[in-house]
Amino acid sequence: MEGKEEDVRLGANKFSERQPIGTSAQSDKDYKELPPAPLFEPGELKSWSFYRAGIAEFMATFLFLYITILTVMGVSQSKTKCTTVGIQGIAWAFGGMIFALVYCTAGISGGHINPSVTFGLLLARKLSLTRAVFYMVMQCLGAICGAGVVKGFQGNSRYQMLGGGANVVAHGYTKGSGLGAEIIGTFVLVYTVLSATDAKRNARDSHVPILAPLPIGFAVFLVHLATIPITGTGINPARSLGAAIIYNKDHAWDDHWIFWVGPFIGAALAAIYHQIIIRAIPFKTRT
Amino acid sequence: MEGKEEDVRLGANKFSERQPIGTSAQSDKDYKELPPAPLFEPGELKSWSFYRAGIAEFMATFLFLYITILTVMGVSQSKTKCTTVGIQGIAWAFGGMIFALVYCTAGISGGHINPSVTFGLLLARKLSLTRAVFYMVMQCLGAICGAGVVKGFQGNSRYQMLGGGANVVAHGYTKGSGLGAEIIGTFVLVYTVLSATDAKRNARDSHVPILAPLPIGFAVFLVHLATIPITGTGINPARSLGAAIIYNKDHAWDDHWIFWVGPFIGAALAAIYHQIIIRAIPFKTRT
Amino acid sequence: MEGKEEDVRLGANKFSERQPIGTSAQSDKDYKELPPAPLFEPGELKSWSFYRAGIAEFMATFLFLYITILTVMGVSQSKTKCTTVGIQGIAWAFGGMIFALVYCTAGISGGHINPSVTFGLLLARKLSLTRAVFYMVMQCLGAICGAGVVKGFQGNSRYQMLGGGANVVAHGYTKGSGLGAEIIGTFVLVYTVLSATDAKRNARDSHVPILAPLPIGFAVFLVHLATIPITGTGINPARSLGAAIIYNKDHAWDDHWIFWVGPFIGAALAAIYHQIIIRAIPFKTRT
Amino acid sequence: MEGKEEDVRLGANKFSERQPIGTSAQSDKDYKELPPAPLFEPGELKSWSFYRAGIAEFMATFLFLYITILTVMGVSQSKTKCTTVGIQGIAWAFGGMIFALVYCTAGISGGHINPSVTFGLLLARKLSLTRAVFYMVMQCLGAICGAGVVKGFQGNSRYQMLGGGANVVAHGYTKGSGLGAEIIGTFVLVYTVLSATDAKRNARDSHVPILAPLPIGFAVFLVHLATIPITGTGINPARSLGAAIIYNKDHAWDDHWIFWVGPFIGAALAAIYHQIIIRAIPFKTRT
Repeated sequence: MEGKEEDVRLGANKFSERQPIGTSAQSDKDYKELPPAPLFEPGELKSWSFYRAGIAEFMATFLFLYITILTVMGVSQSKTKCTTVGIQGIAWAFGGMIFALVYCTAGISGGHINPSVTFGLLLARKLSLTRAVFYMVMQCLGAICGAGVVKGFQGNSRYQMLGGGANVVAHGYTKGSGLGAEIIGTFVLVYTVLSATDAKRNARDSHVPILAPLPIGFAVFLVHLATIPITGTGINPARSLGAAIIYNKDHAWDDHWIFWVGPFIGAALAAIYHQIIIRAIPFKTRT
Repeated sequence: MEGKEEDVRLGANKFSERQPIGTSAQSDKDYKELPPAPLFEPGELKSWSFYRAGIAEFMATFLFLYITILTVMGVSQSKTKCTTVGIQGIAWAFGGMIFALVYCTAGISGGHINPSVTFGLLLARKLSLTRAVFYMVMQCLGAICGAGVVKGFQGNSRYQMLGGGANVVAHGYTKGSGLGAEIIGTFVLVYTVLSATDAKRNARDSHVPILAPLPIGFAVFLVHLATIPITGTGINPARSLGAAIIYNKDHAWDDHWIFWVGPFIGAALAAIYHQIIIRAIPFKTRT
Repeated sequence: MEGKEEDVRLGANKFSERQPIGTSAQSDKDYKELPPAPLFEPGELKSWSFYRAGIAEFMATFLFLYITILTVMGVSQSKTKCTTVGIQGIAWAFGGMIFALVYCTAGISGGHINPSVTFGLLLARKLSLTRAVFYMVMQCLGAICGAGVVKGFQGNSRYQMLGGGANVVAHGYTKGSGLGAEIIGTFVLVYTVLSATDAKRNARDSHVPILAPLPIGFAVFLVHLATIPITGTGINPARSLGAAIIYNKDHAWDDHWIFWVGPFIGAALAAIYHQIIIRAIPFKTRT
Repeated sequence: MEGKEEDVRLGANKFSERQPIGTSAQSDKDYKELPPAPLFEPGELKSWSFYRAGIAEFMATFLFLYITILTVMGVSQSKTKCTTVGIQGIAWAFGGMIFALVYCTAGISGGHINPSVTFGLLLARKLSLTRAVFYMVMQCLGAICGAGVVKGFQGNSRYQMLGGGANVVAHGYTKGSGLGAEIIGTFVLVYTVLSATDAKRNARDSHVPILAPLPIGFAVFLVHLATIPITGTGINPARSLGAAIIYNKDHAWDDHWIFWVGPFIGAALAAIYHQIIIRAIPFKTRT
């Protein structure tokens, strides 16, 4: 019963606020870490909430691709970008959708909407391997359907002409730069997600649990501001796969490995940084 | 000790936080669902709060149309969009007004400001049929007045020349694409609203009740980013009706059915998705 | 019964949460209204917090004018608006500064930064007449200094050439339209402020006290999106006065009355709407 | 008495909420000020959290420079700004990164990411001198690495041609104006930070602890909107140093002192304003 009470002091706890913004952490005690998720949790497969979570990931990734690729099409089809929402509008579409969808689905599936986020959280042992694989499959299926609907609305020839929102390394950049941009970009996103899901900081810093979906969405927006000129910004293998399958041109497939390898490396680095440096988990004994 | 406990109900429940962002829901108990609203609640008609809610919906929809249509006029009347707030500015006007107005009126009327939101919440049994019809009438009246004031400020000839902010399916898109864009766009909005009003998630996820008006406003902003090039974005029959009545040209009336049928189908799909898939309400026994 | 009470500590109160977003208010009891502020409170003049509040209003209005007028100068001095932050950037400067400054000064002076907000809150009896007059004087002084520093940075001739950020009714609009735009624009702002300061809603709706500075800032942003093409958007007599005094050309002074009369009428209408319609305060007996 | 206590659980404290938005502060008691940090705290150097905080500052400043300078490069390399995220997009990149990074690192290092913020908080005695110096060194190293990676991605010749994101006083402005712009800009930022870290206001105003990273990020965004045309906006000596070292051209080094002297003066003025005027700390006896 005591433990149950401690679990819920969100934005308000019984511990002294040792860590106001602007000062630094002094102590490592006083909160309860969830145990690492098992790799296989057989009970999961029998619960409705498991399948519902997969459906929610499918639906969220479907809506994500639909809104974002349609925004890309609207900007691409205009000769002068001034009569459109512009490249900045594309960045808002990607970041804003992640904000809204994380808000809506966080309580159902955790709100990943991105295989590299699922991978990062798997490495941090926040979910089982079974669930991670199931999420990734549903995300990819949702992304394919979302891009498909945009193609249906635009018509085949116009969709192909405008590039279909597919990720490629832009002329003037090496494949190495493209890969690097994907790695650091995904690092920014997954590090933000891990900060927002940190049990210790949820217990202590009032802004962490309340704002969570907003900085996650902003991270996506910011990476798009910086790397749209380089790769069109992937940092989400489901988004890249969905657009590539529906677009289906050779030059999109040639670079496609970058948009899986980059995000997964970035997510792994973020998980390592967070678990080893920030939380020092390997060096602690768990209680 | 009692006082110590009370100190911490921020964000705010007596249940353990089982559902941090990034993980998935495990359990379906522990919160109290409001009973479905009756279709007719005779007592409502005698209470001041019922009429006040209608007046608040009228005023909010009036201000919504005034600010948004005036922004559309300002962008349309300039030859080069660079000297205006641009198409992205129009999207901000629509989304931002919904954010501010939901914030201001949520406590008075529920903050619908949109017949398709009212329809979705009616299907989810969050309000009575009497109230839903009253709201829709007040929203449409407010929208007509709002667009009328803009016409008064702009002058008749300029208002007509600039298109009056009326929704039509753009050249190059089929009526089917327009209808589809309205359906999915309204789905995004109403699904966000239903997520924000979910009793279970309000009890459990601290970001849901606090941020609520922000993702609802963002949903409107994002749909505008994506579908302004297709239909000018309706997803709100009162907004489309208000602009159409004040503009009153044949080509706006020809497509007008799309901006009622699309939003109502989208809202119904969102209500079905939320009630059946996410909450599994038909399969549960209520206590 | 105890459990029922505990269920409802959303945004922290002891009352049951009867009013989730999406539904409407049913009841008018259960919170404590502050008594109306007296017109003259002699004790105020002897407290440091009174003078500190005035200094905070001076500083906030100084920074507000400095950032916003400098942004206007940056946009005006470029031949093509595409190489600047654009008109939308100007709207963000005004709205964003109000957000940041209300956040910073709300706890010191109430965060008005605008004589029409002070006037609206005076009519709602949230502060004394003495304090209101003192705030307005400090706001006007701060605004003059802020615009003066911008002129110092830009140099006199360039500042004059670029219009100095002064408010005038644009060519193509009547003075009546300009006045109307100021009235409705200020109504939007002051109504948002009164919603955020509503004791009843603070007690009940968790998003009201937490988000407050954000929708207030957004209200300013949105009114700028809509009415920059008409009047340059005043809705703040101190801002209009400061720019007019430093610019000091006849055509700015000719329209200047509009930027006092309009905002004060708009603020009065918002106070009447909020007190009579929303709170029905005249018809209630206070306890 | 019990009722009085319950009235006040806004943002979670045990003190009565005397200070709703829109009204002014009446009292100076009822909260606990942290004692001023000692200049040298020998214990710090033996704790892992001290080094971890430094690493977090390094990483945050690295990501800050990487995303922002890359965004600047993307905008600079396009002949017409309409095909980029624009100058406004650059302002969003700077402000948005500060928002996301303060959110992520506030609980680890305090989330400074800026030597002038560290300096302001040192003057306000929120951290020790040892820690302040360590932070500033780590911030500068992170900034150099971040700008270096951007140069690696862009290629040397293109990076140099586009100006490398280095801060210089623009043609048409005097060095005095540039220095003044840096001083007032940093004042806006550090004053916002000090408002967000105010123990008294954290205890009393519910929006202060929850929103904190958002107005801090907005402050950075707003100063960029206003002063990009003057200096490119520094207000962060680490950002200016990192870009200058990697760019390494004479004309960047000539103005470089402005981007250290200006921010440090601005931070000192903000600390003085906050401690003397707002908190009147010198005149109070501490308990």
